[in-house]
Amino acid sequence: MNYYTNSIDEVIHYLSKLPTIGRKSATKMALKILEMDDEFVVNFAKSIINMKKNTHHCKICGNLTENEICNICSDEKRDKSTIAIVEDIFGIVSLEKTKIYRGMYHVLNGLVVPRDGITLDDLNVSSLISRIEKENVKEVIFAISQTIDGELTELYIIDLLKKFKDLKISKIANGIPIGRSVENYDELTFIRALEDRKEVEY
Amino acid sequence: MNYYTNSIDEVIHYLSKLPTIGRKSATKMALKILEMDDEFVVNFAKSIINMKKNTHHCKICGNLTENEICNICSDEKRDKSTIAIVEDIFGIVSLEKTKIYRGMYHVLNGLVVPRDGITLDDLNVSSLISRIEKENVKEVIFAISQTIDGELTELYIIDLLKKFKDLKISKIANGIPIGRSVENYDELTFIRALEDRKEVEY
Repeated sequence: MNYYTNSIDEVIHYLSKLPTIGRKSATKMALKILEMDDEFVVNFAKSIINMKKNTHHCKICGNLTENEICNICSDEKRDKSTIAIVEDIFGIVSLEKTKIYRGMYHVLNGLVVPRDGITLDDLNVSSLISRIEKENVKEVIFAISQTIDGELTELYIIDLLKKFKDLKISKIANGIPIGRSVENYDELTFIRALEDRKEVEY
Repeated sequence: MNYYTNSIDEVIHYLSKLPTIGRKSATKMALKILEMDDEFVVNFAKSIINMKKNTHHCKICGNLTENEICNICSDEKRDKSTIAIVEDIFGIVSLEKTKIYRGMYHVLNGLVVPRDGITLDDLNVSSLISRIEKENVKEVIFAISQTIDGELTELYIIDLLKKFKDLKISKIANGIPIGRSVENYDELTFIRALEDRKEVEY
């Protein structure tokens, strides 16, 4: 049986396609939208269309932008010789929040996922190669998820980068997150944390 | 610092006004919308405006409907002599799912919440009184949240209903939910479950 009106059901249908939104949350959201005033609802709907229309991938790094070139790529003060390879815009946000990283980015727009048929060809990789060929890139830093998909993606890309003899290739360190108890982490994390241990100066 | 474009930030702003949606979920949702194809996004936005424009409260019971009178109030087969008082459309859905309740509804559109300044005057109550006055209503059943706000709302409305001498006033039973362990419920629930105990026929 159909408990809601058709137009409510339609909104529930669309909302429940969004990540982490089940039918129940979508229903609550739809009913909340109904309570809001007309102006809010119209502006909300317009903002969605506007975002979709105006947002593109930066021609250089693949970041999201409203212009041809994103804010970071067009910032003359940043270090053009270093590129952090991230899987999506969340990677950029994480590194920008450190306020320490001042290099450039390259957004892969995903990871290699063999079980879903996603290969390196589906990712934003060829433009990375041509950036390194044309610009004076000295180091690329992998800053992607430390999962099987992430490590596989890293291995494939490292293979393509081997031909650049003077290029330094690095990756973010593995280990125990700050402020976390050691007991919560698996042995692989521990092996890596041990291998990457740093001598304490005293 | 602004990590996203203005148009993405705008969508995040609107989405994060929805229930249970924090800034992080709103961001993930906005970025997911960006990945969807143009047609989906336009239809999604249109569905929101359409829902807002076409959905009204039923003139009789306060249920949500696209017509003047909702499907339930206009269903001649239902028992007009019984009205279940619910706080919102979720109450209707819960009772409809039982497939046993065949009476009418009256949607309060909220509960009395003194700390938020919400009084009985803010709820859909006066039309309930006139329904009882004009129609041949024999019983009203309170089917609202068993919280302090819910019980307070019940008490206030019962006070208004006292003048209808022949009206039967009932409320859904309190007790331990089916399939749940008794140890998870508080003493007030137990007191009520004890008071409302039913003799077992054997």
